[in-house]
Amino acid sequence: MKSQLEDILRRVQAGKLSPKEALYLLKDYPYQDLNFAKVDHHRELRRGFPEIIYGLGKTDEQILKIAGEIIKKGGSLLITRAEPRTYRKIKKTIPGACYNAPAKAVYLKQKHSVMGKGKIMILTAGTSDIPVAEEAYVTCDMLGNEVERVYDVGVAGLHRLLGEYEKINKAKVIIAVAGMEGALPSVVAGLVSVPIIAVPTSVGYGASFKGLAALLAMLNSCSGGVAVVNIDNGFGAAYLASLINHL
Amino acid sequence: MKSQLEDILRRVQAGKLSPKEALYLLKDYPYQDLNFAKVDHHRELRRGFPEIIYGLGKTDEQILKIAGEIIKKGGSLLITRAEPRTYRKIKKTIPGACYNAPAKAVYLKQKHSVMGKGKIMILTAGTSDIPVAEEAYVTCDMLGNEVERVYDVGVAGLHRLLGEYEKINKAKVIIAVAGMEGALPSVVAGLVSVPIIAVPTSVGYGASFKGLAALLAMLNSCSGGVAVVNIDNGFGAAYLASLINHL
Amino acid sequence: MKSQLEDILRRVQAGKLSPKEALYLLKDYPYQDLNFAKVDHHRELRRGFPEIIYGLGKTDEQILKIAGEIIKKGGSLLITRAEPRTYRKIKKTIPGACYNAPAKAVYLKQKHSVMGKGKIMILTAGTSDIPVAEEAYVTCDMLGNEVERVYDVGVAGLHRLLGEYEKINKAKVIIAVAGMEGALPSVVAGLVSVPIIAVPTSVGYGASFKGLAALLAMLNSCSGGVAVVNIDNGFGAAYLASLINHL
Amino acid sequence: MKSQLEDILRRVQAGKLSPKEALYLLKDYPYQDLNFAKVDHHRELRRGFPEIIYGLGKTDEQILKIAGEIIKKGGSLLITRAEPRTYRKIKKTIPGACYNAPAKAVYLKQKHSVMGKGKIMILTAGTSDIPVAEEAYVTCDMLGNEVERVYDVGVAGLHRLLGEYEKINKAKVIIAVAGMEGALPSVVAGLVSVPIIAVPTSVGYGASFKGLAALLAMLNSCSGGVAVVNIDNGFGAAYLASLINHL
Amino acid sequence: MKSQLEDILRRVQAGKLSPKEALYLLKDYPYQDLNFAKVDHHRELRRGFPEIIYGLGKTDEQILKIAGEIIKKGGSLLITRAEPRTYRKIKKTIPGACYNAPAKAVYLKQKHSVMGKGKIMILTAGTSDIPVAEEAYVTCDMLGNEVERVYDVGVAGLHRLLGEYEKINKAKVIIAVAGMEGALPSVVAGLVSVPIIAVPTSVGYGASFKGLAALLAMLNSCSGGVAVVNIDNGFGAAYLASLINHL
Amino acid sequence: MKSQLEDILRRVQAGKLSPKEALYLLKDYPYQDLNFAKVDHHRELRRGFPEIIYGLGKTDEQILKIAGEIIKKGGSLLITRAEPRTYRKIKKTIPGACYNAPAKAVYLKQKHSVMGKGKIMILTAGTSDIPVAEEAYVTCDMLGNEVERVYDVGVAGLHRLLGEYEKINKAKVIIAVAGMEGALPSVVAGLVSVPIIAVPTSVGYGASFKGLAALLAMLNSCSGGVAVVNIDNGFGAAYLASLINHL
Amino acid sequence: MKSQLEDILRRVQAGKLSPKEALYLLKDYPYQDLNFAKVDHHRELRRGFPEIIYGLGKTDEQILKIAGEIIKKGGSLLITRAEPRTYRKIKKTIPGACYNAPAKAVYLKQKHSVMGKGKIMILTAGTSDIPVAEEAYVTCDMLGNEVERVYDVGVAGLHRLLGEYEKINKAKVIIAVAGMEGALPSVVAGLVSVPIIAVPTSVGYGASFKGLAALLAMLNSCSGGVAVVNIDNGFGAAYLASLINHL
Amino acid sequence: MKSQLEDILRRVQAGKLSPKEALYLLKDYPYQDLNFAKVDHHRELRRGFPEIIYGLGKTDEQILKIAGEIIKKGGSLLITRAEPRTYRKIKKTIPGACYNAPAKAVYLKQKHSVMGKGKIMILTAGTSDIPVAEEAYVTCDMLGNEVERVYDVGVAGLHRLLGEYEKINKAKVIIAVAGMEGALPSVVAGLVSVPIIAVPTSVGYGASFKGLAALLAMLNSCSGGVAVVNIDNGFGAAYLASLINHL
Repeated sequence: MKSQLEDILRRVQAGKLSPKEALYLLKDYPYQDLNFAKVDHHRELRRGFPEIIYGLGKTDEQILKIAGEIIKKGGSLLITRAEPRTYRKIKKTIPGACYNAPAKAVYLKQKHSVMGKGKIMILTAGTSDIPVAEEAYVTCDMLGNEVERVYDVGVAGLHRLLGEYEKINKAKVIIAVAGMEGALPSVVAGLVSVPIIAVPTSVGYGASFKGLAALLAMLNSCSGGVAVVNIDNGFGAAYLASLINHL
Repeated sequence: MKSQLEDILRRVQAGKLSPKEALYLLKDYPYQDLNFAKVDHHRELRRGFPEIIYGLGKTDEQILKIAGEIIKKGGSLLITRAEPRTYRKIKKTIPGACYNAPAKAVYLKQKHSVMGKGKIMILTAGTSDIPVAEEAYVTCDMLGNEVERVYDVGVAGLHRLLGEYEKINKAKVIIAVAGMEGALPSVVAGLVSVPIIAVPTSVGYGASFKGLAALLAMLNSCSGGVAVVNIDNGFGAAYLASLINHL
Repeated sequence: MKSQLEDILRRVQAGKLSPKEALYLLKDYPYQDLNFAKVDHHRELRRGFPEIIYGLGKTDEQILKIAGEIIKKGGSLLITRAEPRTYRKIKKTIPGACYNAPAKAVYLKQKHSVMGKGKIMILTAGTSDIPVAEEAYVTCDMLGNEVERVYDVGVAGLHRLLGEYEKINKAKVIIAVAGMEGALPSVVAGLVSVPIIAVPTSVGYGASFKGLAALLAMLNSCSGGVAVVNIDNGFGAAYLASLINHL
Repeated sequence: MKSQLEDILRRVQAGKLSPKEALYLLKDYPYQDLNFAKVDHHRELRRGFPEIIYGLGKTDEQILKIAGEIIKKGGSLLITRAEPRTYRKIKKTIPGACYNAPAKAVYLKQKHSVMGKGKIMILTAGTSDIPVAEEAYVTCDMLGNEVERVYDVGVAGLHRLLGEYEKINKAKVIIAVAGMEGALPSVVAGLVSVPIIAVPTSVGYGASFKGLAALLAMLNSCSGGVAVVNIDNGFGAAYLASLINHL
Repeated sequence: MKSQLEDILRRVQAGKLSPKEALYLLKDYPYQDLNFAKVDHHRELRRGFPEIIYGLGKTDEQILKIAGEIIKKGGSLLITRAEPRTYRKIKKTIPGACYNAPAKAVYLKQKHSVMGKGKIMILTAGTSDIPVAEEAYVTCDMLGNEVERVYDVGVAGLHRLLGEYEKINKAKVIIAVAGMEGALPSVVAGLVSVPIIAVPTSVGYGASFKGLAALLAMLNSCSGGVAVVNIDNGFGAAYLASLINHL
Repeated sequence: MKSQLEDILRRVQAGKLSPKEALYLLKDYPYQDLNFAKVDHHRELRRGFPEIIYGLGKTDEQILKIAGEIIKKGGSLLITRAEPRTYRKIKKTIPGACYNAPAKAVYLKQKHSVMGKGKIMILTAGTSDIPVAEEAYVTCDMLGNEVERVYDVGVAGLHRLLGEYEKINKAKVIIAVAGMEGALPSVVAGLVSVPIIAVPTSVGYGASFKGLAALLAMLNSCSGGVAVVNIDNGFGAAYLASLINHL
Repeated sequence: MKSQLEDILRRVQAGKLSPKEALYLLKDYPYQDLNFAKVDHHRELRRGFPEIIYGLGKTDEQILKIAGEIIKKGGSLLITRAEPRTYRKIKKTIPGACYNAPAKAVYLKQKHSVMGKGKIMILTAGTSDIPVAEEAYVTCDMLGNEVERVYDVGVAGLHRLLGEYEKINKAKVIIAVAGMEGALPSVVAGLVSVPIIAVPTSVGYGASFKGLAALLAMLNSCSGGVAVVNIDNGFGAAYLASLINHL
Repeated sequence: MKSQLEDILRRVQAGKLSPKEALYLLKDYPYQDLNFAKVDHHRELRRGFPEIIYGLGKTDEQILKIAGEIIKKGGSLLITRAEPRTYRKIKKTIPGACYNAPAKAVYLKQKHSVMGKGKIMILTAGTSDIPVAEEAYVTCDMLGNEVERVYDVGVAGLHRLLGEYEKINKAKVIIAVAGMEGALPSVVAGLVSVPIIAVPTSVGYGASFKGLAALLAMLNSCSGGVAVVNIDNGFGAAYLASLINHL
C-alpha cells in the first residue's frame, strides 16, 4: 500500500490530482465494490497470488459473483470451505475449476505463481486430520510452493514419526496438524530447527471441546519455534508458511 | 410509565377511582393478556413505535395471534428471527407484510414513526456479517431513522474502511458489526467522535467460539466510546441507536 | 482526523509540502512521542477534553512524565486506576491535583469543558459497586456533564428503585452499575426511554466469576436500549455517556 | 429406607432371617431389576407418588418396558422428555396415557396423591420459557399440588409482574422460570417471603450460552430465599416445590 | 410491600395524602438512606428478623455506620463476611457483639425471633467445608431455627454418613455443604424425603476451579429434591432453609 | 519397542545391517503405510491383541481398507464408533464381523487373546450410560478379560448399589460409568480397595455441559484410587483396565 | 466394609446385639469422631497403610489433633499439603516426623507396610513439575512401594526421554507428571505396555490456565492406557499406582 | 539429532561401539544430568545460540547451578522470568551478567551469534505491553538478530501506527504485542506482506480474562499471515522470529 500512497501524494504535489480526487482514489482504486463485498484485486497484481474467497457464510450467489469477477480479470481462483453443491454450480460457469473434496476447496490456476525457495512439509497426527491438512496443501500449492505431505504420524507411535525423520528434516517450514492432545508440534519442534506452524483440529470428542484441548496444548508447547493458528485453519497455516517460504 | 402512575393516583385522590380499581388498572391497562403472552400496546401509543415480536422460541400460532392483535389495533409490526415458513403463513392473513430475507424479519409499516434527528451508519467487517446488519437495518428503519449501510470494510484491508471515511464521519451513531476478531469497532472509534454500538457476530469457526472471541474483543476495546450488545443482536443495537438518535 | 488529512493534502497540492514532509507530518504532528508512550494532545485541542491516562500497568515514572507533559501544555488531567502511592508522588509536582479515593482517580481541571446538554444519571445496585460508579462520576464530571448519583437501588428491594423514579426519569443517559446477578439495567430499561449503559462489576463471589455473571446477564437483557461495557469499566461507560450527552 | 433397615435387623434378631437372607433382601426388595434399569416401586408405596421415568437417553423399548411394569403394579405414571413418537407408541399399549405437548410429558394418574397444603405458583419471564414451565406444571400436578401459572411477566415490563402481585403473594412456594438475563427470581424474591425455586432456561442466543447466563445470574441473586436447579429442569423444580408444599 | 401500597392508596383516596406525598412516601418510608446505602428496617418489623449486612466490599466505616443505625433502632444484627479487624472495631462501639470466627460473622441478638417449626440439619462433606457451614449455622440460629450440625460425612466413607442416618432423618430441611466433587447432596437426597439445599464450596484445587466442579455436580444431581445456591453461600442456604422452616 | 531397537543395533554390530538399512528398518518395519493411515501390526504380534480402529472421522472406504489388511494378516478386529451403515458395508466383505449396536462397535475374534487374571466389573449410574459401558464391555472382552456388568446403580438410590455389593467386591478392576453429577466412582471407591477407572458420560443436559460436570466431579473425587478418562471414552477405560488386569 | 457388616448381622442373629446396638456400632466403630473430623482408623488396620491427612483447608490445630490421635494408636502418618510452619509445630510434639520440602509433606513411618510387587516409576516433563512428583514419591514410599524417579524428560528433547528408556521399561506402573502442553504421558504410553497415570500440573502461564491445558491434553491422549487425576494431584496418582502395584 | 544418530550407528557398525555403549551414549551425550534438570549443551554447539533457562518455577539454587554449568562451558546465557532477587544472586558469581528489568531477563553474551539476514520489528499496542515486548527484544538480540522497537501504536489511534509505516515496512518478520482487544496484528497484517507473530498479553481487566480476549482475537484474525504464541510469551515469539530470520 505504501507505494500507492506515495504515488498518490506525488501526483497531488505535481498538481495532477486535487485533494478531493485523491480521497476518491483512495476509496475506489484498490478494490472493486460489489455492494455486499469489496473485492481486492490488488494483491493478485503484486505477487501472482490468487484471489482467495472464504466460502463459509456466503451464499452461492455471492461466491459465484465474486469468482466471476476474478476469473474475468484473469486471476487464479481459490475458494475455501465450499460445499460440493457450490462447486457444482461453479463448474457450470467456470468449467476449468477443480475440487479438492476432503479440503472442500475449489481452485483454478490461471497464471503461474512465483515459487517459494524451499519445501513446505505438512504432517498430520491422524487420519481424521487429513481434511484440514488438505486445505493447507491446496493453499500452499496455489500460492506457489513445493509441498510434501506425511500423514498419520502421531506421537502415540513415535516410530512412525521417526521413520519419516529424513523427509521432515528437509523442510524449510513445517505445518503440523493435530487434534486430540495436539502433541505433534511439540515433538517435531524438538527434532528440527525450522519454524513450525501448529494447526489444532476439531478431531476428538468429549474433553477435546472441538479442538480446544489441542489448541491449548499447542499454545503451551514447551518446544521453541512453534506458533499456532485457529482450530481447523489449514488455510491460515498455509498462507503463513508460504509467506515464510517466499521471504 | 410515570405519567400513568401520577394520573392514576390523581384520579384516586379525586375520588374517581377506588384503590381497588387503581390496582386493577395497574394490572390491566398497559398490556393485553393472551394467556401465553402479555402484549404491550403502550409503547406504540407513546412514540409511534411498532410493536416488536421476537420470533425465536415462539410457535407460528403464537406469533400469528400476537401479530393479529397488533394489526387490529392499527399498529406497525416488526417480527425478528422469523423463519420463511412463518412469513408465508403471516402473508396469508396480513397480505401487506414484507420480508427481509437475510435479516429473517417480517415487517409492516401502518403509521409513520417520528423521525430521529441524525443518520445511523451500519458497518460490517465482512460479507458474512450482513444478516445481522440487515436485522439492525430493518429495525432502525421501522423505528424512524435515516440509515446508511457500508458493508465489508474489515480491518484486514484498512484502505476499504478509510475509503468510506467521509460517509462514516457524517453519522450521528454508528453500529459496527463484526465477527472473528471483532476489531472493527475499535478502529472506527479511533476515527470518529460519535457513539459506537458494537455487535459481535457468530461468524467464524474454531476459537471464535460462536462469537465469543468478537464479543470479548469488543468489550476490551482500547478506544473510548464503544458499548456492546449480545452476539448477533442486530435488533438490540438498532433499538439503542434509535433511542440515541431520537434524544 | 479528517480535516487534518484534508489540510495536509491541500498543502501538498499547493506545493507547500513535499510528499516526504507530508508523511513526516502524519507521523509527528498529532501525538508526542515519549518513547514508551505516544501522547495525543490532539483530542484536547478539539473539545476541551482532558488528556486521560489509564494508570494500570504503567510505572509511576511513566505516569508522572506523561502527566507533566499534559500539564505543561495547559491541558486538564485525568488519571484512572491510580494507586494512592502514585497520587502522593503526583501531588508533589502538580500540587493542584485532586484524588477521588474510591475511584482511585487523580484529576485536575485546567480549562472548562464544553458542557453536555442533559443530565447523566449514575445508579448502583449495591454499596460495593460504588468505586466503579465513582470512576464513572469523576470521568463524566471532567468531560463536562451534569451528573447525579443514586446508589444502592438494586432489584432485591424494588421500592428503593421506584422511590427514586422521578429523579431517574429526568436523565438523558443512564449508567447502571451492578455486580452479582446484574439485573438493574434490565429493570431500569423497562421504566425509561433513554439509553442505558450497563456496567457489570466484579462485586460478588463464587459463581459470579469476578463479574462474568453480571456481564452475561446484561448482554442478555430482555429490555431494549441497553448496551454493555467491560467489567468494572466505569470510565468507558462515562466516556460513552458523555459522547451521547454532547451530541 | 430407615424403617426397612430397622425392620430387617429386627427380623434377623428374632431369628426370622439369616444374615445371608438379610443381605439378599437388602439387594432385591426395594427395586425391580429389568437388567438395563432398576425400577424403584418403593417410593410409590410410601407416598402415592407416581413412578417417574426420565425419557432422554432411553430407547422407546426401554421406556415402554418400564412403563408397563409400573402400570401393571397400579402406579401412576409420569414420563418426562418424551418425544411425540414415543407417546404414540405408549398410547397403543396404555390407552389412558395423556401428553402435555409443550412439556413433552406423558402422564397417567392411577391413584390419587396426597395433596400438599398450599399453592405452588409457576411464573415465566417470557413466552419461550413456557415448555419448561409446563414440565414443572405437569409434575406438580401429578405429585399432588394445587398449581397456578402466570406466564410472560419478565422484568422488562415491571407493570406486568406487579399487575399479578396479588396472585403471586398467595403462593406457598414459587417456581420462577426465566432465560436470557434470568432476573425474574431476584425481583420476585424481593416482593414475597416464600421460597423461590429458580429455573434458568436455555432460551436466548449468543452470550446466553444456552442458559448459562441465566443460571449464573440466578446463583448470584442478591435477594434472599432463592435456590436454583439445572437449566431447563422444570421437573426438578416441581419435585422440590412439592416436597416443600408437603412438609 | 402489598399492604403498604394499599394503605398509601387508601390514604390518597381519603384525601389524607396528595399524590405527590404518596410518591414521597413510597420513596422515604421503607428504608433509611445513608447515601452510600439504603437500610431496610422494614423486614425487621415484620418478622423479628435481624437486619443483615453483607460485609464484603464495604469499608469498615460503612459497616459501622449501618450497624449503628440498626442497633439504635433495637434490631438484632448479623454481619457476614466480616474480617476479624472489622469485628474488633465493632466491639468497641457495640460491646455485646459476638464473633463466629470460622464463619467470619458478627452477630448480636437484641430481640427473640419467631422460631421455625422443625429442625434444620447442616452437613459437611469434609473438615475444610466447616467455615461455610458455620456461616449457615449462625444465620439459621439468628433467624430463629433449631439447628443441628454433622460435619465430615463425605461420600468417600459412606459408613460415616450412614452412621448419622437417624439424626439426619429427623430434619425438616437439610443444608448439605460440600466442595471437591460435591456428591453429598445427591447421596443424602436418596436417603430422605425433605428439601435439600446444596451449598458447593470452593474447597479443592486444580480442576475444582474454585468450587465450579461441586456447583455443576450439584446442579446435575440425579436425585430429586435438591436445589443449589452460590459457591460458599452458607448465608443464602440458611436464609432459604429458614423460610421453608417457617412456612 | 525396546527389544526391536536392541535387536537392530546388534545386527548392525554384527555387520548384518548397514546403518542405512537400520534406518530403513526403523522406518518400515513396525507399521504398514496405507498413505492415509499407518497400520500398526506390531501390537497384535506381541500380545494377541486385536488391531483397533477408531471409526470417527474416517471415511467408510478408509475403515474398510484398514480392516481388510488386518483380517488378511489373520488379526482380530475391533472398530469403535462405527455407524450401522459402516457395519453393513463391512459385513459384505467380512461376513463374520459382529456388531454391538449400543456400543456402535464392529468386532471379529480371529485368535484367542491371553486372558487377564481377574475380573473387570463395569458399573453404570443410569440406563442412559449403557452405550458407553457397552463400548467398554466389548473392548474388555476382545482384549481377553472376564467382565461383569451391573447397570443402573447410581447414587440416588444407594440400596441398588449396596445390593450389588458382593459382586462389586470381587472385581480386580472397576470401570464406573456415570453422567450428570458423576458421583458413582467416589462412592464405589469408598467401598472397595481396587483401582477405579471413572468414565464421565455426556448424559445429562443444561449445566452438565455435555459431560463436563461429571468429568470435573470425577477429577475431584475425594476418594483415593480413582483415575479418569475422557468423556464417553468407554474404549480407553477398557484398554487401561485390561492392561491392569494383565499385569 | 463387607466383613464388618456381615459380622454385625451375625451377632444380631446370635442375639449378642440388639438392632439398636447394631445401628450404634455401625455409627461408632469404624471411625473416631473429633467433632470437626471423623478419623478413620479402619484402613490402617486392614493394610498397614498410614492414616493420611490432607492438610489444605485445615487449621494447624485440627491437623495436630488428628495427627496426635493417629500416632497414639501406633499408626504411620502422612500429611500432604502441609506448610513448613505446620511442620515446625508438629515437630515439637512428634519429634520423629520428617518433612519433604518440595512436596510439602510431613511423614513418619511407625510400622512397615506390605510391599507392592513391582516398581513404580515417576517421570516429570520439567524441573518445575518436581514438587508434584515428590508428593507422589513420598506417598508411594509410605504406602509400601519401590519407586524410581526420572525428572526433566519432557517431549521437547526426545533424546532425554529415550535415553532413560531402559529404566522406564522396567516399571510396573508409571506416573507421568507434566504441565504446559502435557504431552509426556501420550509419548510414554506409546513406548511401554503398562498403565500410565497422568498428572497434569499447574506449571505454565497464560493459556495453560493453571493446568487446564495439560489436563485436557492428557484426557485426550491418543495413546491407550492413560488415565488422569486432578491437576497437581501427586498424592492421588500415587495412591492409585500403589493400589495397582499391590494387586 | 540425525547426524548424531547416524554417527553412533556407524561406530556400532565399525565395531567401535557395542550396542550397550550406543544406548549409553544416546542417554548421556547430548545433555548433562543435574538430577533435577537435564542441561542441553547440544544446541549451543550447533548454532552459537545461548543456553536458555526458563526461570519460573525453578528455585534460585537450581537456576544458579544450571547457569554455572553453562558459563563454565563458555556458552552465552539467557534466563527469562528471573526475579530481581535471583539476578542479585547471579551477579555475585557471574559478575558480567546483565539484567533487563521490564523483561525480567538475565543475560550474558560470551560468544557472537550468527546474525540473521533481515530485521525483526517489535510493535506494542500500549505502554503496558512493554515488559512482554522487552522479553522478545532481549531474546531476539541474544539469538543474533537486528531488532527495532516501536511501542504504543495501538489501533485506537491509527495515525500513530500509520506514522510508523515506513519503519514497519522494512521488517522481515514482525512481532506484534497487544493486550485488551488484541487487534494490532490484524491491522498490521493488512499493511505488510511478511509473517506476523502475534503475542497476546495479559494487559487488561475484567472481560480480558488475563489475556484470553486478546488471544482469541488473534487466533481469529481475518488477515492472512498471522500466527499466535502463548499469552505474554515474548520469548517464544522471539525464538520463532529468529528461526525465520535465520532461514
